Amino acid sequence: MKKLTVIKIGGNIVDKPDALQNFLNNFHKMEGPKVLIHGGGVLATELSAKLGIEVKMHNGRRITDDQTLKLVTMVYAGLINKQITASLQKIGCNAIGLSGADGNSVPAVKRPADPIDWGYVGDVDPARINTSLLAFLLDKGLCPVFCAITHDSNGSLLNTNADTMASNLAIALSKDYTTRLVYCFEKDGVLSDPDNNESVIPLITKSSYRQLLEEKKVIGGMIPKLDNAFSALENGVSEVVIKHADNLLNSKETLLMLR
Amino acid sequence: MKKLTVIKIGGNIVDKPDALQNFLNNFHKMEGPKVLIHGGGVLATELSAKLGIEVKMHNGRRITDDQTLKLVTMVYAGLINKQITASLQKIGCNAIGLSGADGNSVPAVKRPADPIDWGYVGDVDPARINTSLLAFLLDKGLCPVFCAITHDSNGSLLNTNADTMASNLAIALSKDYTTRLVYCFEKDGVLSDPDNNESVIPLITKSSYRQLLEEKKVIGGMIPKLDNAFSALENGVSEVVIKHADNLLNSKETLLMLR
Repeated sequence: MKKLTVIKIGGNIVDKPDALQNFLNNFHKMEGPKVLIHGGGVLATELSAKLGIEVKMHNGRRITDDQTLKLVTMVYAGLINKQITASLQKIGCNAIGLSGADGNSVPAVKRPADPIDWGYVGDVDPARINTSLLAFLLDKGLCPVFCAITHDSNGSLLNTNADTMASNLAIALSKDYTTRLVYCFEKDGVLSDPDNNESVIPLITKSSYRQLLEEKKVIGGMIPKLDNAFSALENGVSEVVIKHADNLLNSKETLLMLR
Repeated sequence: MKKLTVIKIGGNIVDKPDALQNFLNNFHKMEGPKVLIHGGGVLATELSAKLGIEVKMHNGRRITDDQTLKLVTMVYAGLINKQITASLQKIGCNAIGLSGADGNSVPAVKRPADPIDWGYVGDVDPARINTSLLAFLLDKGLCPVFCAITHDSNGSLLNTNADTMASNLAIALSKDYTTRLVYCFEKDGVLSDPDNNESVIPLITKSSYRQLLEEKKVIGGMIPKLDNAFSALENGVSEVVIKHADNLLNSKETLLMLR
């Protein structure tokens, strides 16, 4: 099977123009077909404040009412997605910016309102991802660049977690490609001491992950990221790594394996 | 040659959800490959006001400074483009929303700052439009939906006039397709009396257009629209019509011919 890399960059990189450009230069240097998924950054929150749209959070995650959906669609699918696409085009990477509505690439289901009404938040079933469209674009030499906006196939856009969207895209594409999933963020990997960037854990297996959880060495936002990573490995993705966006081309990273 | 329809809808339709949905239903019913270009509507202006971004106009056209470029990218490439795409997907039309940066589909050149500095405004050369990408998407059964945001291939997005973008897309695609260009707006066609919607001029030739201009029967924003239309006919487009968005499927329209 052909090799494919699926890379997710977080909002922390999106927010820093120099770090973003450095990442995109390295991304372009990577050989073979690849797919980029980007997070949102602070811009949506800043714009919420300016427009007087109340930001409602639950357990650190945004509740997406009608006004917030419009806002994140503007910021993620509009500004950030097209700026990244134009920046990649500049350096010779034939990027094509997409939301999940485009070509019905990533259909989603609105999350049930019970027990918590998240509003216009969508969950993706990897089995429904339009991999034939993605393979078609990749074969043409195009590089799909996704924002984490999907749709319900009934006319509504949906706000989707970018980490989960990345793992679901990697799972879906692993039918057709030997797929590597790379989570890039602002730290050098999964740290055994959150305050020490030198404490990168080089390898986490499913059983060592259980132990890290018991010892509370993995906490907060890292838990859903690692859950997504292991879900990807259990569903066909060959390799998952977590690393700093600056280190895309070197091996400073946490490698995840089932065993 | 295969037939293709290139349709432009103005901001007046984009602003009215019921009229837009009605138009999209009719658009989907039209047979054969087609491309949609949409204008912007009042949303960008409303958002400018809320964000305290000064709207600078010259001869009825927006001057696009850095803040305004971000704003129109959010509104046109984000909100409007993705809402139209999701609405078309709902009714079974396999729309893919694009800006000119996506797949380098519509490269543009920043307009020279002399005599008037329009800011981040781009002009399109039809010869540089990536028709091979568009033919590739159309052959797959996809329907490209364009906002009028382009890029300069040097990392900057550019705001582009949607009427001109539509005529340039139609000109470029007329190499590969027998192309019909349809301008949909809020009147029944080119009117001999602007206050009487019953005064539609059924046919305008190049020479009758000259006469209408001399008699000042065609004024204001209709002049650049007609200039774009005749430019399209002179550069390979087979047919251009101007009509109300509600009348897409009937023949109430102004037909333009070279002679």
